[in-house]
Amino acid sequence: MAWMDYLREIPDFPEPGVLFRDVLPVLAVPDAWREVLDSLEQQVRPLGAHVVMAPEARGFLLAAPLADRLGAGLVPVRKPGKLPDPVFRERYTLEYGENQLEVEETTVLKGRRVVIVDDVLATGGTVKACAHLAERLGAEIAGFAFLIELKALNGRSRLDDIEAPVLALERL
Amino acid sequence: MAWMDYLREIPDFPEPGVLFRDVLPVLAVPDAWREVLDSLEQQVRPLGAHVVMAPEARGFLLAAPLADRLGAGLVPVRKPGKLPDPVFRERYTLEYGENQLEVEETTVLKGRRVVIVDDVLATGGTVKACAHLAERLGAEIAGFAFLIELKALNGRSRLDDIEAPVLALERL
Repeated sequence: MAWMDYLREIPDFPEPGVLFRDVLPVLAVPDAWREVLDSLEQQVRPLGAHVVMAPEARGFLLAAPLADRLGAGLVPVRKPGKLPDPVFRERYTLEYGENQLEVEETTVLKGRRVVIVDDVLATGGTVKACAHLAERLGAEIAGFAFLIELKALNGRSRLDDIEAPVLALERL
Repeated sequence: MAWMDYLREIPDFPEPGVLFRDVLPVLAVPDAWREVLDSLEQQVRPLGAHVVMAPEARGFLLAAPLADRLGAGLVPVRKPGKLPDPVFRERYTLEYGENQLEVEETTVLKGRRVVIVDDVLATGGTVKACAHLAERLGAEIAGFAFLIELKALNGRSRLDDIEAPVLALERL
């Protein structure tokens, strides 16, 4: 079975009208998860990133092994209240609701090439907030990488003003 | 520099009286993070685990690359409201406050050896809740692994009734 066969689709979660793509069952199956990481590594390696950045929490599941494979650093971007001060903070809207993301102001990213990784590209708000945080830390955006891009939500267009490739293993 | 040199200690975070050990700066430095993962892999590999389980969210940062290195599956344990039903749920107390953790009821863990990984062993409530969830899914606990064990909080004693080794890279 290919990794996509393990993806679970849940209608009306977490809000009515949202079709939730649950990637967790993919990770539990070593062969499927290996396939995901191999493909992701193959797509991302040419970007020459020094650092992988990912939003809490599902992004961590992909970004951490990817950074390990690339020999890159890992910068987790966190929800409010998780990080000690001083932090940089970005507010953003997402498919359902509004949120904020934070990164430690002391994170050394100046002049470093950063790839931003998450499981699903929906409206693009979350990863755009990550990109703004990376830029405020002086980084250069090397690209974005996702397991799944939800074409109907057109998150890609929201990333148009950032000069960097947007990669996805599957487009649904 | 050794990985411990990048650890940040923040007094009175997130609550007065708590000395917060911030592992995030360690991850941002590729050599330091590699050192952590190499040591963790070396300690955990002999446990012969099929699956790595970790509580949201910092646990994901270690468990995901560890599972990748071991060729194991990865089962993230999540905070309430993140997972679609049906879920198994455990309530637990932690160093500051009370919380709940959830795992998808459909997770296939029956008869599998599970190692539970987190960044810091404090009171042990979080990982004990993970162990209970794993057991409810029919798994066998192969062990626990942490970057840091806080000896004064004696979390190890809370795990006494589970027949499995408790590993830590550093004891503070």
